[in-house]
Amino acid sequence: MTTEELDVYIRKIPDFPKKGVLFYDVTSILVEPRAFSGCLDVMCALYQGRSLDAVAAVEARGFLFAAPFAIRMGIPLILIRKKGKLPGKTLSKIYQLEYGQGEIEIHREDIPQGKQILLMDDLIATGGTLKAAWELITTAGGLVPEIFGVIGLPFFHYDQVLAPVPVRTLITYQSE
Amino acid sequence: MTTEELDVYIRKIPDFPKKGVLFYDVTSILVEPRAFSGCLDVMCALYQGRSLDAVAAVEARGFLFAAPFAIRMGIPLILIRKKGKLPGKTLSKIYQLEYGQGEIEIHREDIPQGKQILLMDDLIATGGTLKAAWELITTAGGLVPEIFGVIGLPFFHYDQVLAPVPVRTLITYQSE
Repeated sequence: MTTEELDVYIRKIPDFPKKGVLFYDVTSILVEPRAFSGCLDVMCALYQGRSLDAVAAVEARGFLFAAPFAIRMGIPLILIRKKGKLPGKTLSKIYQLEYGQGEIEIHREDIPQGKQILLMDDLIATGGTLKAAWELITTAGGLVPEIFGVIGLPFFHYDQVLAPVPVRTLITYQSE
Repeated sequence: MTTEELDVYIRKIPDFPKKGVLFYDVTSILVEPRAFSGCLDVMCALYQGRSLDAVAAVEARGFLFAAPFAIRMGIPLILIRKKGKLPGKTLSKIYQLEYGQGEIEIHREDIPQGKQILLMDDLIATGGTLKAAWELITTAGGLVPEIFGVIGLPFFHYDQVLAPVPVRTLITYQSE
């Protein structure tokens, strides 16, 4: 599946979640089996032969892509969830949102020590949540060789926020 | 994968989210590729040959099982999300929780009219959220032939709440 083909399946919704913002909706990929499956094929082809030990995904839309990716690649799936959702012993991180704060958690025992963990989300904009997720994983003893997003919005400058970790996306949109 | 094998991978955490509750944690399946993949194999075998037109899943843990299921079965995945998360035109439903209310939504245009939609979640306890999800899908014109959960806790009497829709689970636990 090419970038142009994938773009057709991404619904663009003006003024969501607030006026002046164009929202890129991945849920429209999910209801088209050819698009969802094609997207997964490309993701797996990108990482086939790379020595990944696990994939970590951010709640909730990140789960949609990381779960089939983990199964297809035969690697563990580590969840990054909002505070209070994970029942085991957790490590948590507070980070800044546009308004207020967020807090995310991992199960500490899920992080394999010194192993390569691909960090994944559906869409990367400011990169704030992913930076906090990356810090959580590395604090717990894992390594993050790369961050992957199905969609990237580079005009939010996520590259600077997430440096030095390289970011890879399937499709990028260049303006708001 | 047998029920006994699957049980080994489900972590049991006492006193979560509150004292006296034994929490069945599916995240421990996800970090064991053999378990996660085996679980998906059994799910697909159960529904192979059934005329399913789509699968609908409840945020967030339901996504983990429904996403790979949708890809493997080649059917659309419809998201059921908490209020305010879906950017398109939605249909929403308020329902009772143990304390207070919840509200879930679907994209109305995602529901294929008169088609068979399997409703899925990771764990079924009281069935309250799934009942609201079922009502949303049917109000939007879809049909729900069955509800599927990886784990069932029948002592919460979800069968009564979800009747007349049949419920199927991979593994059930019989007491609190």
